[in-house]
Amino acid sequence: MASVRIREATEGDCGDILRLIRELAEYEKLADQVKISEEVLRADGFGENPFYHCLVAEFLPPPGEPQGKKRRVVGYGLYYFIYSTWKGRNIYLEDIYVMPQYRGQGIGTRIIKKVSEVALDKGCSQFRLAVLDWNKRAVGLYKALGAQDLTEAEGWCSFRFEEEAMRSLAGR
Amino acid sequence: MASVRIREATEGDCGDILRLIRELAEYEKLADQVKISEEVLRADGFGENPFYHCLVAEFLPPPGEPQGKKRRVVGYGLYYFIYSTWKGRNIYLEDIYVMPQYRGQGIGTRIIKKVSEVALDKGCSQFRLAVLDWNKRAVGLYKALGAQDLTEAEGWCSFRFEEEAMRSLAGR
Repeated sequence: MASVRIREATEGDCGDILRLIRELAEYEKLADQVKISEEVLRADGFGENPFYHCLVAEFLPPPGEPQGKKRRVVGYGLYYFIYSTWKGRNIYLEDIYVMPQYRGQGIGTRIIKKVSEVALDKGCSQFRLAVLDWNKRAVGLYKALGAQDLTEAEGWCSFRFEEEAMRSLAGR
Repeated sequence: MASVRIREATEGDCGDILRLIRELAEYEKLADQVKISEEVLRADGFGENPFYHCLVAEFLPPPGEPQGKKRRVVGYGLYYFIYSTWKGRNIYLEDIYVMPQYRGQGIGTRIIKKVSEVALDKGCSQFRLAVLDWNKRAVGLYKALGAQDLTEAEGWCSFRFEEEAMRSLAGR
C-alpha cells in the first residue's frame, strides 16, 4: 500500500515547496501576491541561521514499485519561532497545505501533530496560525483539533504595513 | 523642555519592559494571561541569538534638571522577524504601548516609524501587527499611518493552539 510520511524538508525540496506555496496562494485567491523564488527559499531556510523551518508530506509508492520515480511532495507545513510577551517562545505555522487529491487522509492533522511535537520539544506553550474566514474546511479542522479562534473569541484583527507605507513612514 | 527619545532596549530595561507588558495586558483586559518574568525576558532578548528585539521610548527631563532620577521608560515596541512565503523576511510588531499620560505626543507613531526603518534596513517588504477590534484609537492610528486591516479586507482570522491541545495532539 502507498503511504505518506511527514519529514523535515531539505534544501532539495525547495522547488516542490515553491510549487505548493503557489498552489496554496491560488486556493486562497491571492496568487498575485507570491513574489518569492526557489533561490530565496533555499538561502533563507537552509543557511546557518534559518529564517523558517519546513515539514513536507511525501507520498511513497507501494513497496516493490520503483521508489525513485514516484516519490512526491504532496503537502507542507512552514513554521518559524515567534515570541509572546505573555508566555515566551512560540511557534507560528505560516502555511499548511495538502494537495486536493491527497486530502481526507489525515495528512494535515499529521502535520499539525508534528508541529505540536516540535513546539513542546522547544519549550513553546502554544502555537498560532491564521486562516481565511471562508475556508470552512480548515477552520473546522483546527477547531476539531483544539485550536481557539482568537479573532472570534477576543477580537484580534491582523494589520499589515506594506512597503510603500513603510517607505513613507521611514521618510525614504 | 522635556523630551522623549526612542532607542533600542538594553538588558537593564527588562524590568521596565515587564511593567509595561503588564500595563498593556491590563488595557487589553487580558492581564491574567501574562506568565513571563523579567529573568526570562533578559535571557530571551539579550543572548547570542535573541528571540525578540525591543525599542523603548524614554522620557528625558528638561536640561538642567538632574538626569538620573527622572528618566523613565514610558512606552515600548517589541518585534521579531517572521517569514512570508509570498515575500520573504518580514517583521512582526508583537506589542506597542505608550503609557496613558504620555499619549497624544506622537510617541506611538515614532515607534512605528522606527520599526519601518529597521524593516527596510533588514530587507523586509512589510511588517505586520495585530490589534483588538474594540481598540478604536489604535485601529485609527495604524490606518492613518497606512496599514491595511487584513481581517477586514481578506478575512484572515487568528487561531491558537494552547498547551493542552498541543499535548493531546503530540500524545504527551
